[in-house]
Amino acid sequence: MSTPAAAYSPGLEGVVAAETRLSHVDGEAGKLILAGLPVEVLAPTATFEETLHLFWEGSLPGRNELDLLERELAERRVLPPATYELLRAAADGAAEPMDALRMAAATLSLAPGAGDPREDARRLVAAFPTIVAAHWRLRAGEPPIAPDPALGHVANYLYMLEGARPHPRRERALTTYLNTVIDHGMNASTFTARVIISTRSDVVSAVTGAVGALKGPLHGGAPGPALDMVFEIGEASRAEAVVRRMLERGDRLMGFGHRVYKVRDPRADVLSQAARTLADEGEAAELHALARAVEETVLRLLEEQKPGRRLKTNVEYYTALLLHGIGLPKELFTPTFAIGRVGGWTAHCFEQLEGGRLIRPASVYTGEEHGRWTPIDQRR
Amino acid sequence: MSTPAAAYSPGLEGVVAAETRLSHVDGEAGKLILAGLPVEVLAPTATFEETLHLFWEGSLPGRNELDLLERELAERRVLPPATYELLRAAADGAAEPMDALRMAAATLSLAPGAGDPREDARRLVAAFPTIVAAHWRLRAGEPPIAPDPALGHVANYLYMLEGARPHPRRERALTTYLNTVIDHGMNASTFTARVIISTRSDVVSAVTGAVGALKGPLHGGAPGPALDMVFEIGEASRAEAVVRRMLERGDRLMGFGHRVYKVRDPRADVLSQAARTLADEGEAAELHALARAVEETVLRLLEEQKPGRRLKTNVEYYTALLLHGIGLPKELFTPTFAIGRVGGWTAHCFEQLEGGRLIRPASVYTGEEHGRWTPIDQRR
Repeated sequence: MSTPAAAYSPGLEGVVAAETRLSHVDGEAGKLILAGLPVEVLAPTATFEETLHLFWEGSLPGRNELDLLERELAERRVLPPATYELLRAAADGAAEPMDALRMAAATLSLAPGAGDPREDARRLVAAFPTIVAAHWRLRAGEPPIAPDPALGHVANYLYMLEGARPHPRRERALTTYLNTVIDHGMNASTFTARVIISTRSDVVSAVTGAVGALKGPLHGGAPGPALDMVFEIGEASRAEAVVRRMLERGDRLMGFGHRVYKVRDPRADVLSQAARTLADEGEAAELHALARAVEETVLRLLEEQKPGRRLKTNVEYYTALLLHGIGLPKELFTPTFAIGRVGGWTAHCFEQLEGGRLIRPASVYTGEEHGRWTPIDQRR
Repeated sequence: MSTPAAAYSPGLEGVVAAETRLSHVDGEAGKLILAGLPVEVLAPTATFEETLHLFWEGSLPGRNELDLLERELAERRVLPPATYELLRAAADGAAEPMDALRMAAATLSLAPGAGDPREDARRLVAAFPTIVAAHWRLRAGEPPIAPDPALGHVANYLYMLEGARPHPRRERALTTYLNTVIDHGMNASTFTARVIISTRSDVVSAVTGAVGALKGPLHGGAPGPALDMVFEIGEASRAEAVVRRMLERGDRLMGFGHRVYKVRDPRADVLSQAARTLADEGEAAELHALARAVEETVLRLLEEQKPGRRLKTNVEYYTALLLHGIGLPKELFTPTFAIGRVGGWTAHCFEQLEGGRLIRPASVYTGEEHGRWTPIDQRR
């Protein structure tokens, strides 16, 4: 547009794009409210279905409401036949798990009842674990495992990956993770979903777009590299030397720093605690102790070498530790993030549909302007 | 975030989200610059491949460059086998063309060379007509027609729909349309593509998201209803009575009004002229004359009944007339829009990748805050 009202803020940093009841990120205080409850109250306590109800309906469910939601999700876990076929082709073509998830998500408008926002949301949330698990197994040359309707949403995900019912401790740890990451203000994938649905498009389209945004390395939610660093360090006594060398080389330290949080990401505490609970002995406990030692060293050296930058531990650092402790391979970290975040994406779609306007910003033209056409033989 | 810097502008209206060399929309002056050239200079003259080169490379192509681009596109028209399979399932399930396009677009990372931005862009642009035509025919119970590498991009689209080489006049008319709609500032679908790619995700993900946004009725690009109104009116003498009745009922007049343009959309002129050229005799010429008469009536009555609102003819009005004149069914209007706009989406991806920041705005929390967990039996 010719005369934009506002100054250009690259990346829309600090620009308010929506009002929301779904989450409140206070980056200065290090506080995260999820649909009314602090993350440290909600995440380690609720089942994923309870959290979903809170996000979709605005309140924690009563017994009957919870039963109903659990049933509705369990009934929607099986994928349309064409989706399984596509996942087979994706596995044969060695597609990355996030590409497979995006492709398969896009097909869910082939499921019965598609087009209705609530139905699409239930279908997407219910189907994401099936998609990720089926693709993972097909990629390894193994047949998908049919979902078990007797299991809850989270336990069934681990079951479809592994073929055995998980220990309740692992189920709890993964549930805590999924609750923790279900929503986080106007992050890029959630914003993508809201922009798409703001045209009055459908929830499948919005969530498919969000998966594509979550895939990008700048989004966050790719905690693999943080774990690599801890493994590379190997023992606490080496931490200082390795981290100093990384800082000298100008390497980015994965798992530290966040555009919004200027103090410790509150999710890091919740996930660190969950990882500690899961790993109460042996190797896992040692790894956890190592990670704490590495964290302390990194924070000390960052403060020493980049004072004032306020680079603190972010959610990825303990995500890596927790998901590794649960036994998930690194390649499934980001798809598992999506299995949690789809709860937030769908809730934001409902909220945007309730009364939100078309999201259509302006741009500033920085190109040239010619008046005349140049015939092909006169070009250059 | 706790203390947003900027005031909340619903729908980000007037908020500058990007700097771009790709298009300049001057809504007050009714001017549209496409990569340096006024729409009325570029659109009726260039081939679609020339326009693409202008958008992707910043200049109109020389003879060799154009030959190369034409060849590169022609070589990428055939879809991956899994994509054809999926389109078959979509046709069997009676999926809408835009849903089929979104699903099939998402699968294009199965094609050779996927992941490279330029390769993905060529693949997407080349494949869109194949997807739309194959799905259209499968839906009608007919086999897809293989692309003809001897034909240009636009002629081949009509060929794959119809099975016969189109008359050059129809090819020219459709080319003018696709050039006209290739880009238009920070519209919602283009913005979607930029948000997704701003995470350093891939071009297939960005374009898939954009298709989902374009699908929404608030986006614009669904010109079917404008045509319905002209047909309903049937003859010029009835225009005043019908339009008055619509205004009394509070009906929205499709094809009039735009968030950005406060004068006549410059694209309307280009498309009206193209439709006039195509329809130089018989029924088509009569329909064109009727459409002009209806337009004049609508504008007069809008000015009379909603003075100051400045509701002018938008791009959809003459899009409907032109695409109808070319012989495209109404259901293909929006997918055909996408076949043009994907040129802009991909160019915006390149531009955003060049140096753009992660697009991550803020939100304001309007929900409650409780400190305590309520056990299930104490809820309500």
